[in-house]
Amino acid sequence: MTLNTLFDIPPLNTKLKSACQALIDNKTKPLGALGLLEPLALQLALILTRSENHKIELGIPQLVIFAGDHGIAAEGVSIAPSEVTGQMVANFSNGGAAINALCQTLGWQLSVVDCGILVKPELDLNVISQRLGTSTNAFHRKPAMERATLERGFDLANALINNMLEKGTNIFAFGEMGIGNTTSASAIFSAISLLSPKETVGKGTGVSDEIVMKKQALIADALSLHHKQLDTPIGVLQHLGGYEIVQMVASMLTVAKAQKVIVVDGFIATAAALIATQLAPNAKDYMVFAHCSGEQGHQKMLEYLEVTPLLNLGLRLGEGTGAALALPLLQSAAAFYNDMASFTDANVTEVNG
Amino acid sequence: MTLNTLFDIPPLNTKLKSACQALIDNKTKPLGALGLLEPLALQLALILTRSENHKIELGIPQLVIFAGDHGIAAEGVSIAPSEVTGQMVANFSNGGAAINALCQTLGWQLSVVDCGILVKPELDLNVISQRLGTSTNAFHRKPAMERATLERGFDLANALINNMLEKGTNIFAFGEMGIGNTTSASAIFSAISLLSPKETVGKGTGVSDEIVMKKQALIADALSLHHKQLDTPIGVLQHLGGYEIVQMVASMLTVAKAQKVIVVDGFIATAAALIATQLAPNAKDYMVFAHCSGEQGHQKMLEYLEVTPLLNLGLRLGEGTGAALALPLLQSAAAFYNDMASFTDANVTEVNG
Repeated sequence: MTLNTLFDIPPLNTKLKSACQALIDNKTKPLGALGLLEPLALQLALILTRSENHKIELGIPQLVIFAGDHGIAAEGVSIAPSEVTGQMVANFSNGGAAINALCQTLGWQLSVVDCGILVKPELDLNVISQRLGTSTNAFHRKPAMERATLERGFDLANALINNMLEKGTNIFAFGEMGIGNTTSASAIFSAISLLSPKETVGKGTGVSDEIVMKKQALIADALSLHHKQLDTPIGVLQHLGGYEIVQMVASMLTVAKAQKVIVVDGFIATAAALIATQLAPNAKDYMVFAHCSGEQGHQKMLEYLEVTPLLNLGLRLGEGTGAALALPLLQSAAAFYNDMASFTDANVTEVNG
Repeated sequence: MTLNTLFDIPPLNTKLKSACQALIDNKTKPLGALGLLEPLALQLALILTRSENHKIELGIPQLVIFAGDHGIAAEGVSIAPSEVTGQMVANFSNGGAAINALCQTLGWQLSVVDCGILVKPELDLNVISQRLGTSTNAFHRKPAMERATLERGFDLANALINNMLEKGTNIFAFGEMGIGNTTSASAIFSAISLLSPKETVGKGTGVSDEIVMKKQALIADALSLHHKQLDTPIGVLQHLGGYEIVQMVASMLTVAKAQKVIVVDGFIATAAALIATQLAPNAKDYMVFAHCSGEQGHQKMLEYLEVTPLLNLGLRLGEGTGAALALPLLQSAAAFYNDMASFTDANVTEVNG
């Protein structure tokens, strides 16, 4: 069983911190003038280099979309029926979705994983099958899944990501598709932060105020029903999560354990990151938080995690789109770290006092 | 004389607006779920396409850095002496600055223009000479330049950009280098907005509170000295501007007149955009505001212009770095507009009902 092997994440190599920071501070620019790119470059250097003289080398970035259906969707918590999950999986495979256009433009390699959607994808589609079921249980009535199902999800995701790591990938992003999964993410956030569902539920991809209230009520019911099982992160994941969220958590931990970079997308991906960091606090050091989405709970979740997102574009789509858009910032941070001249190199008067 | 020929900018082709918006709304995503990328795609389509069936084709993007020295710098308003302008011009030419690393990574073509710096660049450097002098006058004592000098700057910049336009460039960004030029930009903003220097002056690339107060006092003196000449945008530019700011204004107007895209960088570039839009309000339709910098007056300037920047990374460097970083967002907006499937194409249940 993979589960317990993923909790022991090595800390960042902080021995290099002052040398790498000095290298950044000696570049031909005022101290800190590259804003958020500077701590980003430091983080990438501490993850990916072995000495301050080494360059940050980003390999071909890999984006994996995990798709899963949610029993709670039958309660009408989304603008679309569960069938749309499978239709969008086909759209990903056929190259027609937003994430396809972004990956093509920005240079991500894209893989799509069926973690358990209502209608099995056609065999001719380019979808990796890691199905844990047809749909989770509606979590206001039952645990979303069995413990054994969660453990199987960890095994499958861990093997998939290890395979990608063996091919030399050192930068990963995880996107998701699953009608109803903002409700699951809000429930997870409420269970961990103890914030009320009123604080953690938003409009998802665009539901009415009435549906927002229904989402809040369903989550309140679930928190009350399962309260004895919500005192561990794994309990929260099993009772309130989704098949795609389970595989995202396992994937993030696998990448962190291998000491590579995880680019965290929006509300649902951040809920997965929240579980991952509860299981293994060091995992956060390997995460770059790509953006703050338009979903109201997302900003609170980022604050709870005490992290600063790079972008704030009002996205509310999922699929990994926000993570995809952050890649050029990582590449730019690596480029200035690797290639800029120092004051001495360039014979520029040092302007840092 | 070029000056007056640039005030007549054609409006955007708004006849296409509803067709292009409908195309965006029928893509396989919830309405508006791509956040700021959606109005950006619409703007690019209205500038660069001739029908809603045409793709947005972004050519090789061109970034031009204009460098100039400022008389006001002798008053000690910056963290660095004026000599650093020329040293950084050499650094740009030798590929060692932040903007070089970003252009290399993100795909911008880079040109550097000497608009009038204290020490003429060595002849072996790859710098375009469009010198209007050695340095502007200290504007708290005299007009920054003569009217004829400003007009000559317009002629030179207009010819340069027309040449680039003839080569097929359809996306431009303008960066700057000039010790002391945040003081000039704050003075311009105060003269146009009538906000007091206390509201428009910030820490530039990192000066002390004492120097901030000195900048405010110098600007107050200049506003009082020239007040009779500050009732037109050209008067403001001549009395408070810089050689590089003059050439940026002329370049922006030249691009807008040709109906191509201008990506506007930080505080100084936005001051140039402010003058350009005062001279020709339609010019704003061709401008994409790349980012909000860490300079305190910049956010106010963007609000004064009633525009929403794409990025907010706490940059305070200039050189066009923020504009450079926005390019992948323009490319991504074009990509989703050009390549995403519609609900009908992809056989996805329309979720916008």
